[in-house]
Order: sequence, then C-alpha cells, then structure tokens
Amino acid sequence: MTDDGPLAGLQGGHSPRSYSTTGRIEVARFMDVHSGFVGVTGPQLREAHERDLAIEQDEGVHFERAWLDPESGKVFCLSHGPSKEAVMRIHERAGHPTAEVYAIPVEVE
Amino acid sequence: MTDDGPLAGLQGGHSPRSYSTTGRIEVARFMDVHSGFVGVTGPQLREAHERDLAIEQDEGVHFERAWLDPESGKVFCLSHGPSKEAVMRIHERAGHPTAEVYAIPVEVE
Repeated sequence: MTDDGPLAGLQGGHSPRSYSTTGRIEVARFMDVHSGFVGVTGPQLREAHERDLAIEQDEGVHFERAWLDPESGKVFCLSHGPSKEAVMRIHERAGHPTAEVYAIPVEVE
Repeated sequence: MTDDGPLAGLQGGHSPRSYSTTGRIEVARFMDVHSGFVGVTGPQLREAHERDLAIEQDEGVHFERAWLDPESGKVFCLSHGPSKEAVMRIHERAGHPTAEVYAIPVEVE
C-alpha cells in the first residue's frame, strides 16, 4: 500500500484516526452492531467476516476485528474506512446488513 | 503478576479466552455498551476510564479499551474478568453503570 492510499497514516498503529487536511480521503474508525447471531459458531463468524474482507477494498474499508456473543446473538465489529455508509454497503453486500454503525473518533486504553 | 493470578494465561495475547479446568478462576472477555455520553470529550472519557482502572483489581477485571461516539453518546468498552457481574460492579462503583454487558467468547480478525 502506498502512502497515497485511503489508509495512509494508519499503518503500524492500532488507533486509526487520521483526518485529511490536504485533500486526501479521510479515514475514521467505526463500531457496528449486529443482532440475530444466536448460536453462531466461531467458524461461521469467521466465514461471515471473510465475506467482508473479500470485498472491503471496493469501498476503502477494513474490518479489523469482530466479537460474538452467541447467547444474545450480538456481534460487535471494529472497522475503519471513509464513511459509515461505506461500512454499511460492504456489510450489506456480504449478507449481514446493519443500520447500527457508530463513528468512534475517541479511544482510550 | 504470577501465573496463579486470575489473569493467568492472558499475558502476551490479545485474545483472552482462557477457561479453567483445574480450579483456577475462569476469565472471559466482555463488551459492554453505555449510552448518554453525548458531547463527551476525549479527556472526559479518559477520566471515566481511569476511574474503572483504579478499582478494577478488586474484582479481577481489566478494562482493555473503550471507544466513544460523542454524537450518539454510545461508549463500547472491551474488558476481561471472571464474570459479567464483576464488570458491572466496577462500572457501577466508577459512576457509569450499565446493564448491557455481553460475554464475547468468539473473536475473529
């Protein structure tokens, strides 16, 4: 990946909050929430996640990590990309749409 | 930290899903969700998080990371510890109780 790509400035860190002031595409971080994954297994979550990874570059998005509570059926998915809508489009095309996507510009650890 | 502590087996990895079969305290991972943090700043989130960190050892919990969407007021908080109730007790004592805590035994990246 070159330094001119949409993810410029994000490599090597775990806190991608790079905002453009020079006309580059802006990249922000998002958390999205899915419901209805009751009883889903690890391999099934991986398969769903890989359907996102396979097409995420079409929108300049990267899905970093996803966590599943198979009891409640909630999935939390951490990503970065140019917009909330870009994240939603990839999830929709991958077969697990959600309207619940939050921009998370603030992170602490 | 010794190998006998409640977090034994969790050091050095980012995927704490160590379950005891030998009488050790079990440790699992959790995501919790808070609402109502509209307009909260980074320093304010850090201060809230540090109130958790200051007392988390009382329950064998560790709050790894928290993300804030100041527009919707949602906070997502990643932790590990012996139980959902332990996580809830620390958050309550720290002044930001939530009933929305999910065990997340499955993680993909």
